[in-house]
Amino acid sequence: MTHAAASLPGANVFFLLMGAILVLAMHAGFAFLELGTVRRRSQVNALVKILSDFGISTIVYFFIGFHIAYGISFFGNVASLTDHGHGFEMVRFFFLLTFAAAVPAIISGGIAERARFVPQLLATAFLVGLVYPLYEGIVWNGNFGIQAWFSQVFGAPFHDFAGSVVVHAMGGWMALVAVWLLGPRRGRYGKDGSIHPMPPSNIPFLALGSWILIIGWFGFNVMSAQRLEAVQGLVALNSLMALVGGMLTALALGRGDPGFAHNGALAGLVAICAGSDVVQPIGALVIGGIAGAIFVYLFTLVQHRLRLDDVLGVWPLHGVCGVWGGIAVGIFGLRVLGGAGGVSFGAQCAGTLLGVLIALLGSAIVYGAIRRFIGIRLDPEAEFMGPDLAIHHVGAYPEADIERA
Amino acid sequence: MTHAAASLPGANVFFLLMGAILVLAMHAGFAFLELGTVRRRSQVNALVKILSDFGISTIVYFFIGFHIAYGISFFGNVASLTDHGHGFEMVRFFFLLTFAAAVPAIISGGIAERARFVPQLLATAFLVGLVYPLYEGIVWNGNFGIQAWFSQVFGAPFHDFAGSVVVHAMGGWMALVAVWLLGPRRGRYGKDGSIHPMPPSNIPFLALGSWILIIGWFGFNVMSAQRLEAVQGLVALNSLMALVGGMLTALALGRGDPGFAHNGALAGLVAICAGSDVVQPIGALVIGGIAGAIFVYLFTLVQHRLRLDDVLGVWPLHGVCGVWGGIAVGIFGLRVLGGAGGVSFGAQCAGTLLGVLIALLGSAIVYGAIRRFIGIRLDPEAEFMGPDLAIHHVGAYPEADIERA
Amino acid sequence: MTHAAASLPGANVFFLLMGAILVLAMHAGFAFLELGTVRRRSQVNALVKILSDFGISTIVYFFIGFHIAYGISFFGNVASLTDHGHGFEMVRFFFLLTFAAAVPAIISGGIAERARFVPQLLATAFLVGLVYPLYEGIVWNGNFGIQAWFSQVFGAPFHDFAGSVVVHAMGGWMALVAVWLLGPRRGRYGKDGSIHPMPPSNIPFLALGSWILIIGWFGFNVMSAQRLEAVQGLVALNSLMALVGGMLTALALGRGDPGFAHNGALAGLVAICAGSDVVQPIGALVIGGIAGAIFVYLFTLVQHRLRLDDVLGVWPLHGVCGVWGGIAVGIFGLRVLGGAGGVSFGAQCAGTLLGVLIALLGSAIVYGAIRRFIGIRLDPEAEFMGPDLAIHHVGAYPEADIERA
Repeated sequence: MTHAAASLPGANVFFLLMGAILVLAMHAGFAFLELGTVRRRSQVNALVKILSDFGISTIVYFFIGFHIAYGISFFGNVASLTDHGHGFEMVRFFFLLTFAAAVPAIISGGIAERARFVPQLLATAFLVGLVYPLYEGIVWNGNFGIQAWFSQVFGAPFHDFAGSVVVHAMGGWMALVAVWLLGPRRGRYGKDGSIHPMPPSNIPFLALGSWILIIGWFGFNVMSAQRLEAVQGLVALNSLMALVGGMLTALALGRGDPGFAHNGALAGLVAICAGSDVVQPIGALVIGGIAGAIFVYLFTLVQHRLRLDDVLGVWPLHGVCGVWGGIAVGIFGLRVLGGAGGVSFGAQCAGTLLGVLIALLGSAIVYGAIRRFIGIRLDPEAEFMGPDLAIHHVGAYPEADIERA
Repeated sequence: MTHAAASLPGANVFFLLMGAILVLAMHAGFAFLELGTVRRRSQVNALVKILSDFGISTIVYFFIGFHIAYGISFFGNVASLTDHGHGFEMVRFFFLLTFAAAVPAIISGGIAERARFVPQLLATAFLVGLVYPLYEGIVWNGNFGIQAWFSQVFGAPFHDFAGSVVVHAMGGWMALVAVWLLGPRRGRYGKDGSIHPMPPSNIPFLALGSWILIIGWFGFNVMSAQRLEAVQGLVALNSLMALVGGMLTALALGRGDPGFAHNGALAGLVAICAGSDVVQPIGALVIGGIAGAIFVYLFTLVQHRLRLDDVLGVWPLHGVCGVWGGIAVGIFGLRVLGGAGGVSFGAQCAGTLLGVLIALLGSAIVYGAIRRFIGIRLDPEAEFMGPDLAIHHVGAYPEADIERA
Repeated sequence: MTHAAASLPGANVFFLLMGAILVLAMHAGFAFLELGTVRRRSQVNALVKILSDFGISTIVYFFIGFHIAYGISFFGNVASLTDHGHGFEMVRFFFLLTFAAAVPAIISGGIAERARFVPQLLATAFLVGLVYPLYEGIVWNGNFGIQAWFSQVFGAPFHDFAGSVVVHAMGGWMALVAVWLLGPRRGRYGKDGSIHPMPPSNIPFLALGSWILIIGWFGFNVMSAQRLEAVQGLVALNSLMALVGGMLTALALGRGDPGFAHNGALAGLVAICAGSDVVQPIGALVIGGIAGAIFVYLFTLVQHRLRLDDVLGVWPLHGVCGVWGGIAVGIFGLRVLGGAGGVSFGAQCAGTLLGVLIALLGSAIVYGAIRRFIGIRLDPEAEFMGPDLAIHHVGAYPEADIERA
């Protein structure tokens, strides 16, 4: 019996580690989704950006961010780090880092094909090291007593189980500011109001990225329980239903377009993160279905009406569907709609709004300062050449390029 | 102790969830295997078909199919769905859905490049919502007392541990009917008996699809135990041996061809599903090796002699190797050949035959009715244009297409 | 309570199975890393080599190698194989096989584009069946009492937790001999000292391979604990830190090159295997960072100065970074540098040296004999045609090839 009990912390480490591995894989998903959606001249840049954003995020979240959010650091010798069992907190760091690093990965898709490399890594450092953990700590660690205050005012704290708002809305609204500050790709919008099409380079890689994200998302959501004894099959089923709902509406509204179908699945998954533990499966299907519709309509609106060159549509996908997910908890989480209850529409709106405001403000300060003092935009010559050759000195298919030359 | 005991249901949820995630990933594998094997003009269609087949399968299996097979539904509020522990049944639904959705994914590879989109989704709805769960329930839930009757007659029930017959033969024989009803791709077979080669577009994606299937298959087989306390290392080892056996014979007989090698591994895995818990590792190697040989010989036979345009060879791969797997249990599962015993050659033949008959009949009714009343085949103009442009209005490499135009 | 205790062996099977699946996936990573790095004419060969090397490795490790290293075999009927619980040893075989098969996968990247197919499989059979298990058994099973002797002489045994030396250095130094015996690709080095560039064919596939390896590596390292009760979060965190360290230094020193960035991550991971359980996270960051630098400098040195045509740079990556990992345990594992202690610099050097010697000697005998008696090199005509057409009778993009013809 002692033996059995002693093995439980190990089981938690295993459980959360599998979550961390699955969400780590999602970063490969972000890379290939961007690679497939951008033009061929920016494929290498997409790959290197996602990988190096992940690296910078690890460094700043290890040294600063995790401490801001949770007051925990991992400096010190092995004995001090491991003398309380199996090192669960270190795996928890790994798991939550993969969430934190999703923020620059989301932004990356919005500002693709035209941002300078090092300044963007600098923005990543500030956003993941300071801004994201500020809001993360408020929501998930009760920092500053804001959740307690929500509970007092609204009767329930802000509920965001797996990060519709904490991760996705945060990244999506940060990206909105960055996209606006950066301006559209050269030649994207004519002065006469025309729009120059810049179609995706590679649908198979776009789809591969989407599939990797879909698969990893089950780690993102289910392992957000963090401990095996809190695991809920409901979270898995709701994630599945929302993914299917988002995909099917986006497929129908997008008239069979592969980009809409594969991103629609992601829209549903973004929206279900927050409430996957408190809504019923049919509620999840509806939440996802609405998210798929939001994505299709807003993607076109943003690109064509607002003339914001959000290349992957990350503001509709993560920003708006994330907000929808946060608010949806306050609707479909209610007992009257078959939810688990214990949630408040007011708290969901207030908590979501707070997230959007922190994202907008943080991104405006960071990207604004970098634009002002360093410059975030590739110079015209480099952009004309394309980021792959200008930044990385190599294209995505070097053998073919050499043969052609 | 209470604590330790209480965590066990959580452990089962975790265990089966990892299985569900692995088999979910296999659908990406189906997508890329088809994408790589078809012509470039049908790559987008391959991706969207697999994704949307999965979506439709989820809907019909959630609302109808799972209830037919197991008498369980997940309608109702969260409290009623989760008050018995960690929601194990919901994860079991997710796991078994990923099996059910494999049936249209298998068919998809056979009828590639020429089927209409919405009619095929309609066929998926009927096959996954009604036909598949009928047989699934008979074999895995003892419905209609047929397993009990087998036990009486043959001394043992029909044994199909992970679905050589329930999933793979079912899909493969359904596909045979669909391929036959649909007819070959335009220009594939000349009236003078000639065969126009339609070679694969992309071997790397074919191999990627195969690898994803191989990896996910260990979830398919091992997690078919469904509960952690029933997990068996033997299942993993047998899967490995059969995969290697199938790959090596297909490699040798296919004289180094990459398509045969990568599909040969899958042939071995199809054949070992049924008996992976009752045969010994060397038996698994032989079962897989024979499956690899079956695939190589029948693939050529079907395409060249029978002039059935089964594009990915899903009838040999899933249909015939699935049947071989079902029957092989009745040979290599016997004690005299080192197996665990408790199986009957007669029951294996009878159960397998029943599966093939249900597949043939169900597919004939569903695809026959759709062909008769709606039409399943792309019109000649659309097929000439290719399904990507005709159905999805975009090719797989839109940037390159625009440059070329 | 009995129930809880009884479930523990199942938990170990599940834990180690997930490790085996993750490391199995790494073989897909090896395949795509090689496919993306070689020229287009050798892409199919890369895929088939990795897959068939894995198959041959399974056969010889099952029938010979595992018995050499651990004295265990799995011949016999199911009852004898499973009567001690859940079949943990069979999953342990699967896990350790995926390690053993990494050795030819590493070598494959070094000798790419010019080796004959069957002779290379023959070399794989000897190296995985005999040479690798010899050293594996010495280090991980205490065979021949060499670890005991190290303990006596140095005060501690040679510590290689997850195989920096046992797997990676072994593969990398074997590859060095093979590369040298095989000679460079035709036309690679001019007689006038010039170097003909043979740039990678496909950076996206190179990156995909790297990502798959990165993700699988967490199974490689963390599951090297083999039993759930021994799992350590520290191993996961250290792997993460080393990966990031290696990636960032390679990115910076390689001036943004995608090949260096993606391989740099692997260099860090190679180096941390040995000490991931005994160094502190900041130590791991440094170990990985140094490995990234080693890779960038040596890769260029090998190709340009030593004029050794190690196509993927597997000797720097696995050979030298593996040695660095083995030695680093003797530095960063010390208590004075925050490590867990219990390690000896002398034992690390001695154990690493022994591994390098066995690799060099084993590879020299095997590849030397094959070169002498069978021939390991493609004949000039076949190499000119390219291994895909010469060996596999098909290119990577058959549809496009047919259109072009």
